[in-house]
Amino acid sequence: FFSVVAMALDQLPKGWFSEVNSFWPGQAMSLEVDEVLFEGKSDFQDVKVYKTKAWGTMFTLDGCIQVCDKDECSYHENIAHIPLFSHPDPKKVLIIGGGDGGAMREVLKHKGVESVTLCDVDKMVPEVSRKYFPKLACAFDDPRAELIIGDGFAYLEDKKDMYDVLIVDSSDPDGPASTLFGEQFFTRCKTALKEGGTLVTQAENIWIHLELIASMKKFIESIGWASVEYANIGIPSYPSGGIGFFVCSKRGSCKEMARPIAPDML
Amino acid sequence: FFSVVAMALDQLPKGWFSEVNSFWPGQAMSLEVDEVLFEGKSDFQDVKVYKTKAWGTMFTLDGCIQVCDKDECSYHENIAHIPLFSHPDPKKVLIIGGGDGGAMREVLKHKGVESVTLCDVDKMVPEVSRKYFPKLACAFDDPRAELIIGDGFAYLEDKKDMYDVLIVDSSDPDGPASTLFGEQFFTRCKTALKEGGTLVTQAENIWIHLELIASMKKFIESIGWASVEYANIGIPSYPSGGIGFFVCSKRGSCKEMARPIAPDML
Repeated sequence: FFSVVAMALDQLPKGWFSEVNSFWPGQAMSLEVDEVLFEGKSDFQDVKVYKTKAWGTMFTLDGCIQVCDKDECSYHENIAHIPLFSHPDPKKVLIIGGGDGGAMREVLKHKGVESVTLCDVDKMVPEVSRKYFPKLACAFDDPRAELIIGDGFAYLEDKKDMYDVLIVDSSDPDGPASTLFGEQFFTRCKTALKEGGTLVTQAENIWIHLELIASMKKFIESIGWASVEYANIGIPSYPSGGIGFFVCSKRGSCKEMARPIAPDML
Repeated sequence: FFSVVAMALDQLPKGWFSEVNSFWPGQAMSLEVDEVLFEGKSDFQDVKVYKTKAWGTMFTLDGCIQVCDKDECSYHENIAHIPLFSHPDPKKVLIIGGGDGGAMREVLKHKGVESVTLCDVDKMVPEVSRKYFPKLACAFDDPRAELIIGDGFAYLEDKKDMYDVLIVDSSDPDGPASTLFGEQFFTRCKTALKEGGTLVTQAENIWIHLELIASMKKFIESIGWASVEYANIGIPSYPSGGIGFFVCSKRGSCKEMARPIAPDML
């Protein structure tokens, strides 16, 4: 009851976006596009927004898919709720990157959270999100939200015992986020966390970047945590259909929820 | 330390395979191809084998990716070991479809299995697998393996209380596998199973085919089982990077292993 319409070595018809990138060589996600909604060049990267046929509005940075309306829920819910539910009482949260607002939106669903600070290096990202991704950017209007434009690595320099949960919602290590993938950065993250605090960081895909993940694991562990764990999630529009997170806690394993889900979050 | 090489609405360069299909409209997996190794047309479908740059040898039927060397392990291990480990003592196994041999290879890793019968409608599939996918087709040389070329629906017509585990390793419902997606087929499967037996069947992707999955769930449940459960796995080369299985048991839930993994399987 369905028919195959095209395939093989023929080139894709015009009107398709393909995410060809040397960071995941030989493979690409391709999405049919109706319209280019925005094209910009910030101080840091190319910023584009597309209207796709089947995946909603799509946000790309330097040609890499960051957000599609259809599956952003998987990424943002997991990067926020994994650390927040594994902490018994998260009150102060810091997000490095995440300028689209999606992770912040999920953090703010936790009623106990008193403040969320988001530090993104590129002011064009929240600006574009406010215009084209209102379901993500709604987070910025919450009275508990604070938006800082600046480099996350520099921001952390003097922060000590300040946050219960720290979320590193970065792009890939080949662009402006490259400083967010080193040992010194993770040392600053750990220092910025309170006793019992939890760090979660975007940590690439196991099918493509196992060596990078293994090397990250080594230097993250070398800093000293009660637990360093890897969470693997499905998100179709990301390379190889998924992404992983390192979840690091000063308290213990994050595999179990530390508190129940409130009825109004379901 | 990595560089973006190309992107956007430009057409993909020549030498890329794109899996464009009306069954998952508006999205496509694209893989860079070095060489077309085989092109054939069987009585049922187009059969092709490609050498890809990053995903090993690739098998397609009617333009749809069936197997890539790099990630076939995820599909074949899960479709075999989920039902076999959830059964306390599987001795006789039937595979409908699965003509590449991958699921059979995993089944045969269970030392207690006395016989595996595989019934695939298209004789070109095991022939091509023997030539281009020796790591899958090795299963056919096991003395416990029996290969039958024929329609799985017809094969099941007179089978009753014969198998401990039945694996439906089909292609999508729009091709020669269409008879493997109906209520009558699942009734025959249930009849063919012994008391306490387990059925597993390929059941599409939750991001694309939730309605199809919901309708399958209804008619599978209507037949009467001790449990009907859905297992979701990651496999990057499949649409939206994953696939699901319905796991149906005459015994009870399949969420726990019924017996331990033998040391020589690890």
